[in-house]
Amino acid sequence: MFDSADLEHRMDKAQYQTEEPLLRRALLDAQYALASRPGFPVLIIIGGVDGAGKGETVNLLNEWMDPRHIHTHAFSEPTGEEAERPPMWRYWRVLPPKGNIGIFFGSWYTAPLLRRVLGDDGQDALDSHVAAILRHERMLVDEGVLLIKFWFHLSKDQQRKRLKALESDPKTRWRVTPDEWRRFRKYDRFRAVSADVVRQTSTAGAPWIVVPGADHRYRSITAGRILLEALQARLAHVPEVHTEAPAPLPQLENVKLLRDLDLGKKLGKRRYERRLEKLQGELNLLSRAKRFRHRALAVVFEGSDAAGKGSTIRRVTAALDARFFRVIPIAAPSEEERAHPYLWRFWRHLPPHGRVTLFDRSWYGRVLVERVEGFCAQPDWMRAYSEINDFEDQIAASGTVLSKFWLQISPEEQLRRFKEREDIAHKRFKITADDWRNRERRDAYEAAVADMVDRTSSRSAPWTLVEAEDKNYGRIKVLQTLVDQLDAAL
Amino acid sequence: MFDSADLEHRMDKAQYQTEEPLLRRALLDAQYALASRPGFPVLIIIGGVDGAGKGETVNLLNEWMDPRHIHTHAFSEPTGEEAERPPMWRYWRVLPPKGNIGIFFGSWYTAPLLRRVLGDDGQDALDSHVAAILRHERMLVDEGVLLIKFWFHLSKDQQRKRLKALESDPKTRWRVTPDEWRRFRKYDRFRAVSADVVRQTSTAGAPWIVVPGADHRYRSITAGRILLEALQARLAHVPEVHTEAPAPLPQLENVKLLRDLDLGKKLGKRRYERRLEKLQGELNLLSRAKRFRHRALAVVFEGSDAAGKGSTIRRVTAALDARFFRVIPIAAPSEEERAHPYLWRFWRHLPPHGRVTLFDRSWYGRVLVERVEGFCAQPDWMRAYSEINDFEDQIAASGTVLSKFWLQISPEEQLRRFKEREDIAHKRFKITADDWRNRERRDAYEAAVADMVDRTSSRSAPWTLVEAEDKNYGRIKVLQTLVDQLDAAL
Repeated sequence: MFDSADLEHRMDKAQYQTEEPLLRRALLDAQYALASRPGFPVLIIIGGVDGAGKGETVNLLNEWMDPRHIHTHAFSEPTGEEAERPPMWRYWRVLPPKGNIGIFFGSWYTAPLLRRVLGDDGQDALDSHVAAILRHERMLVDEGVLLIKFWFHLSKDQQRKRLKALESDPKTRWRVTPDEWRRFRKYDRFRAVSADVVRQTSTAGAPWIVVPGADHRYRSITAGRILLEALQARLAHVPEVHTEAPAPLPQLENVKLLRDLDLGKKLGKRRYERRLEKLQGELNLLSRAKRFRHRALAVVFEGSDAAGKGSTIRRVTAALDARFFRVIPIAAPSEEERAHPYLWRFWRHLPPHGRVTLFDRSWYGRVLVERVEGFCAQPDWMRAYSEINDFEDQIAASGTVLSKFWLQISPEEQLRRFKEREDIAHKRFKITADDWRNRERRDAYEAAVADMVDRTSSRSAPWTLVEAEDKNYGRIKVLQTLVDQLDAAL
Repeated sequence: MFDSADLEHRMDKAQYQTEEPLLRRALLDAQYALASRPGFPVLIIIGGVDGAGKGETVNLLNEWMDPRHIHTHAFSEPTGEEAERPPMWRYWRVLPPKGNIGIFFGSWYTAPLLRRVLGDDGQDALDSHVAAILRHERMLVDEGVLLIKFWFHLSKDQQRKRLKALESDPKTRWRVTPDEWRRFRKYDRFRAVSADVVRQTSTAGAPWIVVPGADHRYRSITAGRILLEALQARLAHVPEVHTEAPAPLPQLENVKLLRDLDLGKKLGKRRYERRLEKLQGELNLLSRAKRFRHRALAVVFEGSDAAGKGSTIRRVTAALDARFFRVIPIAAPSEEERAHPYLWRFWRHLPPHGRVTLFDRSWYGRVLVERVEGFCAQPDWMRAYSEINDFEDQIAASGTVLSKFWLQISPEEQLRRFKEREDIAHKRFKITADDWRNRERRDAYEAAVADMVDRTSSRSAPWTLVEAEDKNYGRIKVLQTLVDQLDAAL
């Protein structure tokens, strides 16, 4: 992987002085074209060996281009707020919006690589990280992010010379600490591990660019040129517009899943109230348990219109201390949310330790309403299943308990509730023309729901189908499930 | 202040059962009216003594209303990210947007009160906190926030009984720790200090509501009713619309400040380059100094169009490590920003320790473009001066060095630069019809600039007027000033 970069690459001063102003001008033009018509975000990942010019290149790019539209993020130890979420959270929170360039100095590669080099992780752990990174980057690229990955390389000999040179100059001496030399002694191992990772994660959509780092002129012009070419190519590229209606959905056998639900299940008022009080008490105790202080709970509520999501959520929150939960209603995304990849707006609401987040509708919108109404193209919702599985695996792996509920009612009951809502003043806001229209697509929605449940029920984040025709029965089933899942997890 | 609340206040069960459903329904209606036509945010502050029902009331409000539009925040110790900013930052970052209700459990009152009660602060320190709080709340109210402050009260005797009752019930025993009893022993002092603060901070726009906390029915209905009345009154209130043009600006003597600048000041290329290199080196060293790791730097750039803000900023950032600075270009606010008070979008970008934020235009827009173009009403920009002074005082008090530059050029030079921009392809994006129009209002802008400099130059955050007619001269003056200010501060 690094063989060609090991060779001597140089650029003389005259050539640099000819190329630099042209490159700079062209980069600035490309950057303004991007900013003035924000179609996509650019994310530049900087990796490589110490002394190979990572920091210098980052500074140079900021100097060459307009720093107002570049956001550079250096990642060292996670802050307290970051440490309480899945490891990817810190990268999601600073993902550049459309029209902007983000530079990540240090990235999701850093920790897995170093842990393997230092022997803290075995090869299996590294392989699994690499697989997760591949899926993550694939998702970013599919979401329209222009992802450019630079690996700055030095041969062992070059690195030794470089560290010595830095050390002997009083102006740069501070940059070489015993840490640098300690890492240098691991050069061979670092090289071997990183060569594997760089090779495995060089994909068509996001290849690594290995930049020989010894000669600063060659290195700078090379990195600048690669960036320019990538920007220009993408700016010139007119993305395919999916105007055709989505292909008809194959009617799978799996809708049986929903049709077979026994919507006749009922719970009388007396028993309901007794069980409600008992379950709320249990949930309250669990949420205050010592063991919960290093865990968190995320709950997803999905269901057709008028299925009772809101009133069920209120039976759950009534059991919780208001200081420790948040309800996130998911409607149309804001301007800022639209400028980011699809999952960004859900990542930002993940609960920290000891807290509960209840999502009233969720990331499943993509495979439900967006699929059925054709708001997103078929390839986009098709890939969403695995993206969502990845997202939820990360939530679960970080110790957050994830519960997901689908509330099911019959068309007749839905109609009854719609009419009731129209009659009751303070519920009228809840019924819109959309609701009536959605009713007509019930078959398409049911197919989408069945696919969703089939494809995204995992051991760590199973779907619970709730017979919600009788409100009492549905609410108790949700509370009982939450109590069981939380109890099992703690 | 608490005399009437000391008395016995009770509500019998029958009355509660009559009133509660009506109140609940009305609150929900008011909340939906607010959410469906988001005109203002609601902020509820919860204070008072332990055991007086603070937590219960917060939970009840979440139960009575729709928790999807309520955000409850409990403030305990600041997180790492919060501790590196001015104390108010943690409250700004979770301020509710328009249409939402925020509940602050603990607030800007908590720390000053407790520090005074425990004797860590003297009376002067408390007085100064109270004055700052008054200005802060005044600003929130002026910005349209409906601010409701509940103080839950118990007499000493009631508190003792309440703690004992909690202690003797196995279900609530966990709530009474030695801390509660330790605080109880300070009851008299806590009462005396808080009575003063509650009285002093009960203003027309944001009065404290002292709620007797002993009887849960009386307390709950009272808090709910007060909230309902405040919501209904505000929803019914049609805010004055300022349609008339702003009153003509008084032409003060102070424009001399700008007119007297010697725009003939120049710096030759050779000397410029030598000084640029030297100053960038000095700035770089200062930004890497150990002493800077617990400080931060915020720099404001204002100036007429084409005065050279962007190119000057690039001369500054070229001296800095890209990992440690951010440039924040200020243009029209986003949807999310418009839903918050004016200063919110600047608070969110304040640098943490060891970092530099450069604002390309800033919060001064309110007293410059918004004043001159009539984008905001005269009373609004008039009050902005003191709000900005408060904001900057907080920045400075937290250890952040704040530098502010006004770049001045002559009308002739501006015209020359506009024409040049139109000729150069990659600069064309920089010139718009607005720029030409703004030129015609030069007198009005100069008056606004002079007022701004007069009213917001403070010892900790002075304005530096920069003769920017000659770009070299202007850039060196900015760099030299930054180096001097940073050096003096560290």
